[in-house]
Amino acid sequence: MTRRGALPPVDCALYLVTDRHQTAGRPLVALLREALGAGLRLVQLREKDLPTRALLELARDVRALTREHGAKLLINDRLDIAMAVEADGVHLRSDSLPVAVVRRLLGPDHLIGFSAHSVDEAVKAACEGADFAVLGPVYETPSKRRYGLPIGLRPIEEAARRCRIPVLAIGGITAARAGEVRRAGAFGVAVISSILSAPGVAAATGELLDAIVASRAGR
Amino acid sequence: MTRRGALPPVDCALYLVTDRHQTAGRPLVALLREALGAGLRLVQLREKDLPTRALLELARDVRALTREHGAKLLINDRLDIAMAVEADGVHLRSDSLPVAVVRRLLGPDHLIGFSAHSVDEAVKAACEGADFAVLGPVYETPSKRRYGLPIGLRPIEEAARRCRIPVLAIGGITAARAGEVRRAGAFGVAVISSILSAPGVAAATGELLDAIVASRAGR
Repeated sequence: MTRRGALPPVDCALYLVTDRHQTAGRPLVALLREALGAGLRLVQLREKDLPTRALLELARDVRALTREHGAKLLINDRLDIAMAVEADGVHLRSDSLPVAVVRRLLGPDHLIGFSAHSVDEAVKAACEGADFAVLGPVYETPSKRRYGLPIGLRPIEEAARRCRIPVLAIGGITAARAGEVRRAGAFGVAVISSILSAPGVAAATGELLDAIVASRAGR
Repeated sequence: MTRRGALPPVDCALYLVTDRHQTAGRPLVALLREALGAGLRLVQLREKDLPTRALLELARDVRALTREHGAKLLINDRLDIAMAVEADGVHLRSDSLPVAVVRRLLGPDHLIGFSAHSVDEAVKAACEGADFAVLGPVYETPSKRRYGLPIGLRPIEEAARRCRIPVLAIGGITAARAGEVRRAGAFGVAVISSILSAPGVAAATGELLDAIVASRAGR
């Protein structure tokens, strides 16, 4: 995921999606610093309820922090904010600008992630120029309940087989489950609360990264 | 307002700001077609409650329509949507991306409008690269009540004197009031309900344009 078509490095196999309402009252930027210090290298800033200027200011802080740690930053939905802070890319949903439109505006050197809720959506996003797809919710999880029932591992297997881009599983992923998700074919995992709601953010990040590396070695 | 620094043509002295909730239930695009047919040449698409994809689809329709009529289209707040539909520019507010950031991303050939609520804000926007400022609410109006009390004509006079960009007055502007607003120094007027809530949209547009042209001739 460093650039289109390139084999993604394993440190991009853990994707933290932010939600400042799931931090148990702790400041998001401080938690991100902890997670980045523990080895996180891919962040999606996803704060849908912020107006443009407030989102810009947060994005600037997170951009400085991710740059400092050599991590990549994608902005959810807002191409304008991504451009303004020189993020590494944009993360799109089905109600965002279409992948093909964003690819045209961003050019080939930026990342486009896409949140799919079915295998067909993931395949379509790949065809239109997404660099990777996030698919889920795999397991039951409070933050993903609004996206419907857990889809389980079978769609992950199918998406990994049919997509020519990396597939990351989302929804209730913990360090204990990372292995089976990877064995199903997921390149990596995307998490929100498993890191942001954890009492120890650095430890939670480290455990997830260790589980991913271990599962890779075992494949 | 055709490009930065250029003397704006008088047909850009009427700026329609959209609000599809103020059309008395009539479809916005149909009303826009009527207003454009009556001579409107400057439109701001301002539908803040629409998610990205829905806003994109509406913006595409309005882009096609404005292009067909040789009118300019600005998108409120969302630089990404403006880029995606090849709008003529972006209209910013104090909680949008900063004018200077948008100017850097858009280049010199696109319009940047700015909604100011004080003379100082208008002057600042001009310094940062805005092409024109909208200032108000001048008169009492339901749609602008949330922006505070009417400011009257004095700030329009002061802004026209201090800004080196055209100032458009907003807030309760009718054809009957367009003359005094122009005499106070406003280059033009921005309206929402005076057009969109009018029983006859084409007639209302024509009356506003006539009043603007008449007041210009009389200066």
